[in-house]
Amino acid sequence: MNDVERSSALREAKSAGVIFFNEVATRDGFQIEPEFVPTDTKIALIDALSECGYAKIEVTSFTSPKAIPMLRDADEVMGRIRRLPGVEYVALVPNLRGAERALEAKADELNLVMSVSETHNLANLRMGMAKSFTALSDVIRMVGQRAHINVSLACSFGCPIEGSVTQDDVLTWANRYADQGVRGITVCDTTGMAHPAQVSRMAEALQKQLGQLQLAMHFHNTRGMGLANVLAAVQSGIRRFDGSLGGLGGCPYAPGASGNISSEDTIHMLEAMGYDTGMNITRLFEVARQMPHIVGHDVPGQVAKAGLITDLHPAPDYVATLREQPVETFSD
Amino acid sequence: MNDVERSSALREAKSAGVIFFNEVATRDGFQIEPEFVPTDTKIALIDALSECGYAKIEVTSFTSPKAIPMLRDADEVMGRIRRLPGVEYVALVPNLRGAERALEAKADELNLVMSVSETHNLANLRMGMAKSFTALSDVIRMVGQRAHINVSLACSFGCPIEGSVTQDDVLTWANRYADQGVRGITVCDTTGMAHPAQVSRMAEALQKQLGQLQLAMHFHNTRGMGLANVLAAVQSGIRRFDGSLGGLGGCPYAPGASGNISSEDTIHMLEAMGYDTGMNITRLFEVARQMPHIVGHDVPGQVAKAGLITDLHPAPDYVATLREQPVETFSD
Repeated sequence: MNDVERSSALREAKSAGVIFFNEVATRDGFQIEPEFVPTDTKIALIDALSECGYAKIEVTSFTSPKAIPMLRDADEVMGRIRRLPGVEYVALVPNLRGAERALEAKADELNLVMSVSETHNLANLRMGMAKSFTALSDVIRMVGQRAHINVSLACSFGCPIEGSVTQDDVLTWANRYADQGVRGITVCDTTGMAHPAQVSRMAEALQKQLGQLQLAMHFHNTRGMGLANVLAAVQSGIRRFDGSLGGLGGCPYAPGASGNISSEDTIHMLEAMGYDTGMNITRLFEVARQMPHIVGHDVPGQVAKAGLITDLHPAPDYVATLREQPVETFSD
Repeated sequence: MNDVERSSALREAKSAGVIFFNEVATRDGFQIEPEFVPTDTKIALIDALSECGYAKIEVTSFTSPKAIPMLRDADEVMGRIRRLPGVEYVALVPNLRGAERALEAKADELNLVMSVSETHNLANLRMGMAKSFTALSDVIRMVGQRAHINVSLACSFGCPIEGSVTQDDVLTWANRYADQGVRGITVCDTTGMAHPAQVSRMAEALQKQLGQLQLAMHFHNTRGMGLANVLAAVQSGIRRFDGSLGGLGGCPYAPGASGNISSEDTIHMLEAMGYDTGMNITRLFEVARQMPHIVGHDVPGQVAKAGLITDLHPAPDYVATLREQPVETFSD
């Protein structure tokens, strides 16, 4: 980026405001890892993430150890992480029991999930949307002012079983939860079906109807559109995103495909464009590069492998010679 | 996509016009494959690609068999492919000898390459930019009206050795080639360094100065920004893109990273958004799914693995039961 570009990008960013990231790798990523990530490793990772500049870290979920054995250490993890001021520590909770545990563990925010596709909700949570809404409303009432509440609406951009989900349906559910007093709504592209035009329309409608809430978007890179969708959302005014370090996570309907958008790839793009994400990029990439070692396999995140756009390479040795003694025109 | 969204997307597309794709997998992809792709396989693939709706197919390059052994069959491939009306068959040529061979082989378009970074040009073509310009100008004059000429400007968004490349420098070189009478200019993000804000600025400046030419962009997905860059380019009026089926290709400065943007992932996104790419999507994905077999390894393209956003999945068996007999609220 030259100086003119940089100053233009900075002007853009200044007028655009800061972009906030919620790191979900230790919850959304680890929950589907084949091997249990040791509790000490989780805690060390979350402590490292706390130093990276995230607005929120979704630490774990308070679900049944039978349902999600990989996160069976939720209470211990929440109890032992080192909390930095300015970072909110989030826990996903599916029900009242989970909410009680999350409150005991002093979660700053409880993230509640339902799908806006009836079939996906039945498949994923084994109840219909109406029953989910009743159950989550009970949680919201029980929690009261003791923690912030965010609701993540899964399949907001399409359902891998039903297909299309209308924007009106998503907005109806978002409004119902807003009426319950939640602080934030995250519209989730759970299986990577969103495309940028759809994201722009959703972003505009959400802000128009629910601009007083924390509005976040959660994308998967299943079909390669993850960062394009972030771009469309940012262009349309969305300022909060979920991301997963290394691009961990995934979708059982697309085995072998990429999972959540990679936090570091997304942040790298937005920072390059001149947006202020508040992140410590050097520290972020140090931590991102640990991910393959932590999970024991390659991860989808690309910048940690390829290097940042500012990471340069030495010229091949013959270039110096060529500069001194220009050769004849290349010929075969 | 529901009907309202579809009709809105279609309106968008109609006003936006058609988007044209140049498939470069058999040239830019195959040239760095470790195993030689047999000539018959190349020809069968190109014949299949011809049926997919591409505006152009960059078939091969007429370079030295010693420099690029993987494309040593350029003459035979060009001679034996079945040409469909409406598709232009392109050959990359580095010099006069290559241009003569390409003309003999009846290439519709000759694609000439130089880097707009002096160091990258020295490293890649073993001559400075001034010498490249002289040599390519000789080619352009020799070819005259016998074929169309496109010039690809490598490293237009940054050089992995030098770092920043200014937009003014890119425009200066583009203008020099425009003055030579070329039909098209492709600005290439050779090593995946471009970000969307930079792409938008470049797109606008190019169209302002050289709107009479075929202006194309060539992106790599090295750092995950490929489709976001396409989106930014399309939003800024660019209507021609290079793509590589399966995302073949790559960059020696980022081993292990993704290569060129995947044609099918890009086309899938733009079609989902309502743009008209003129492509036969069904046929395209049939061919895309052959790529891992053709090259003998996994390829980066994601939609061919994950399925199109319109490819739905059956509900798990228990969902039917749940629908009939609502269970109690999920509890751990």
